[in-house]
Amino acid sequence: MNLKKRLRLYVITDRRLRDEIETTKAALEGGATAIQMRIKNAPTGEMVRVGKELRKITKEYGALFFVDDRLDVALAVDADGVQLGPEDMPVYIARELAPNLIIGASVYSLEEALKAEREKADYLGAGSVFPTKTKKDARVLGLEGLKKVVESVKIPVVAIGGINHENVRKVLEIGVDGIAVISAIVGAEDVKKAAEEMRRIIDEYLGGE
Amino acid sequence: MNLKKRLRLYVITDRRLRDEIETTKAALEGGATAIQMRIKNAPTGEMVRVGKELRKITKEYGALFFVDDRLDVALAVDADGVQLGPEDMPVYIARELAPNLIIGASVYSLEEALKAEREKADYLGAGSVFPTKTKKDARVLGLEGLKKVVESVKIPVVAIGGINHENVRKVLEIGVDGIAVISAIVGAEDVKKAAEEMRRIIDEYLGGE
Ligand code: NI
Repeated sequence: MNLKKRLRLYVITDRRLRDEIETTKAALEGGATAIQMRIKNAPTGEMVRVGKELRKITKEYGALFFVDDRLDVALAVDADGVQLGPEDMPVYIARELAPNLIIGASVYSLEEALKAEREKADYLGAGSVFPTKTKKDARVLGLEGLKKVVESVKIPVVAIGGINHENVRKVLEIGVDGIAVISAIVGAEDVKKAAEEMRRIIDEYLGGE
Repeated sequence: MNLKKRLRLYVITDRRLRDEIETTKAALEGGATAIQMRIKNAPTGEMVRVGKELRKITKEYGALFFVDDRLDVALAVDADGVQLGPEDMPVYIARELAPNLIIGASVYSLEEALKAEREKADYLGAGSVFPTKTKKDARVLGLEGLKKVVESVKIPVVAIGGINHENVRKVLEIGVDGIAVISAIVGAEDVKKAAEEMRRIIDEYLGGE
């Protein structure tokens, strides 16, 4: 399965909403194709411990596993890749240090998208598509902005930011390669069911496997 | 110059007391042999930017440059090494990921010291020798505990925690290979002078170069 297909339903952990291991198991059971571990302000040792667990679980499901921000943790737990935002390590440095990792770049404008592609990011996490409570400081790219990004880059684009079961069709109509979700899945009462529903809608647009 | 000699006066940055670049220049001018960049809760991109500056300056002075906790940042800025505590990435993993980096282990007990040596740490930062305000949660090893560590390991031992110009002789009498300082130098009115004085005392015990 190529990278594009494996980015289809991309779930990002958020311990403020739910424990990472519980999130990951249920999301994968529901059809998530990629998991990103996103932990802020915890000791590195804890990130490594949790990351090793998530690596084990994602491997069982044949899902991709990414680590937010931390190249050291990604390498330590043998993740498939790392997700880097504008405030993180520059993509071109990570590319040099870890030539075998998949590098995703979080971009909030067309300019950042083009820069990330030039620096050899493997895919983009582009957003925020909609305003979001999870990342209050995130800039809003909007559907129009997202469309321009999709039309302007060759690498896969995963849409992120405020996407839920109600608005996801509008995002898929633009032609993105994947949907990244935090609240609508991690914060759902039934994580597995929320992932299943989201996956079903995505497959309507992107075709079955 | 071997590692031991280069660990003689080891200054750790603390932005709550003074800017890292200003600290580093003045400390090196005063005779520091190693600088550790210690930044908590800043974006990785900022750590990389500051780290690159400190790498440049330390190179000009032929001093060692270490990064606290973050193996990714250490690799990105081409630091000489990384300093890992009990809450950070395990030493044996860092050793595997970065065979060419100097790995220092922060240890707070004889047990941790022996474990770090077994995991192939290159040197120890052992403490706290005295109670300290900079790291409130640090366990106190004391002079007796430090002595046991020095007698029990073969790798160089740098003493850390509450060491100042008044009490440093007691620490040097134990036979440590270096003195790590934060407040007494970074928080001094004249950083260069504070480093000079400390270096002079250290050289009395460890001999000139
Ligand atoms: Ni010794």
